[in-house]
Amino acid sequence: MKAKRKPMERGAAGRQAKPVERRVLVVDVGGTNVKVRLSGSEAVHKIPSGRKMTAEGMVSAVLGLSRKWKYDAVSIGYPGMVYRNRPVVEPMNLAPGWVGFDFPRAFQRPVMILNDAAMQALGSYRGGKMLFLGLGTGLGSAAIWDGVLEPMELAHLHYRKGRTFEDYLGLRGLERLGKRKWREAVADVVARLKKAFGVDEVVLGGGQAKLLKEPPPGARLGDNANAFAGGFSLWKTAQSNIFPR
Amino acid sequence: MKAKRKPMERGAAGRQAKPVERRVLVVDVGGTNVKVRLSGSEAVHKIPSGRKMTAEGMVSAVLGLSRKWKYDAVSIGYPGMVYRNRPVVEPMNLAPGWVGFDFPRAFQRPVMILNDAAMQALGSYRGGKMLFLGLGTGLGSAAIWDGVLEPMELAHLHYRKGRTFEDYLGLRGLERLGKRKWREAVADVVARLKKAFGVDEVVLGGGQAKLLKEPPPGARLGDNANAFAGGFSLWKTAQSNIFPR
Repeated sequence: MKAKRKPMERGAAGRQAKPVERRVLVVDVGGTNVKVRLSGSEAVHKIPSGRKMTAEGMVSAVLGLSRKWKYDAVSIGYPGMVYRNRPVVEPMNLAPGWVGFDFPRAFQRPVMILNDAAMQALGSYRGGKMLFLGLGTGLGSAAIWDGVLEPMELAHLHYRKGRTFEDYLGLRGLERLGKRKWREAVADVVARLKKAFGVDEVVLGGGQAKLLKEPPPGARLGDNANAFAGGFSLWKTAQSNIFPR
Repeated sequence: MKAKRKPMERGAAGRQAKPVERRVLVVDVGGTNVKVRLSGSEAVHKIPSGRKMTAEGMVSAVLGLSRKWKYDAVSIGYPGMVYRNRPVVEPMNLAPGWVGFDFPRAFQRPVMILNDAAMQALGSYRGGKMLFLGLGTGLGSAAIWDGVLEPMELAHLHYRKGRTFEDYLGLRGLERLGKRKWREAVADVVARLKKAFGVDEVVLGGGQAKLLKEPPPGARLGDNANAFAGGFSLWKTAQSNIFPR
């Protein structure tokens, strides 16, 4: 392998600046499916999840799926609050036992765990000051401000009439309001939060984003595949300050 | 003034490292009272607040109270989510109009705004990894990890039996459970979160903390006066990385 390196990579500058190219397995944990993608591949593999899925069950299913694959590191998008690389609250729609679980030991590789909306935000980022809203069963949120990622917990904050942002923009909001009024609520929340946060743009992702005919003013639509882009880029930017505290 | 300086403070090192001593007015905005304290004074002044108090009304009352005082900067503890020095969600128990309000212009001084629990956490910090819980009408939360402050939004996350942490630990939890069971819930949440976050200690502040006979294992009691200490220290640490994103 050494002989194949370009000469400049062997110099002092090369030792200092050479980027580490890790092969990464990205695992996006959702309430219906766990989606898995290996860096260098376009294929997204789905493993059914649900209320009986434990952290151990997830790892064992992912290890089974990927047993012939080669990868050096794992990124996990987790459907709940994460602090300093640890899930701190159990997931709403899965079995408990995720808090305190030793993911690096179970995968036998270094693992980075990030809130799922934050991971998708990272993959959707183009620069400047961005707020990301994930319109799914619930409402995910994260901000990136000049390259610094900040997971948010906006879902359960008060929006209007004694109801929360999630009550309006999440799946139950869509069912209660109907598509037309739900779209109006999305547009109103986008306008308010864009101004309140002082961001350049709001990116709308998540499974329900496709129900918007077009993004409201000040917003653009994210692509759910961005979760994987975010998961891969985590390992490239791990040493920079984008990785959240 | 110059003549009174010590010689070493006039040297090059002095110019580089001399701390700026600002006189700071700390304003702790609550749903019942706005509490005000000037640096160098022990006196805490109370201005009644409530559901009719706007941001403009708060500023005008504080400016009235302090019109003969000298101060260079203002710290505001805000009862709601703050991002990058801006309230991003309207307060629950006050009149709306706080989001987008120009506080530096209204005070005619530089202003730092911080979530109220985060400000109290900052004043309670002794080092290491700390989680702060503010037991009041609601449930405030913030973490400080090796000197880096991170406001939290734990209140509305799921705890147990379909209820949130705030449903158990907030005022309504206390009323529903009674003192004995509320104390048990506080102890259980402290133990869980201490482990989940991987912190060295949990500090319990807020108006209801005095109802704990003694702090549960792994916790210590904060002093509500710590909000002011936090507000003063904000301006000392403004250039360090403790100030939250």
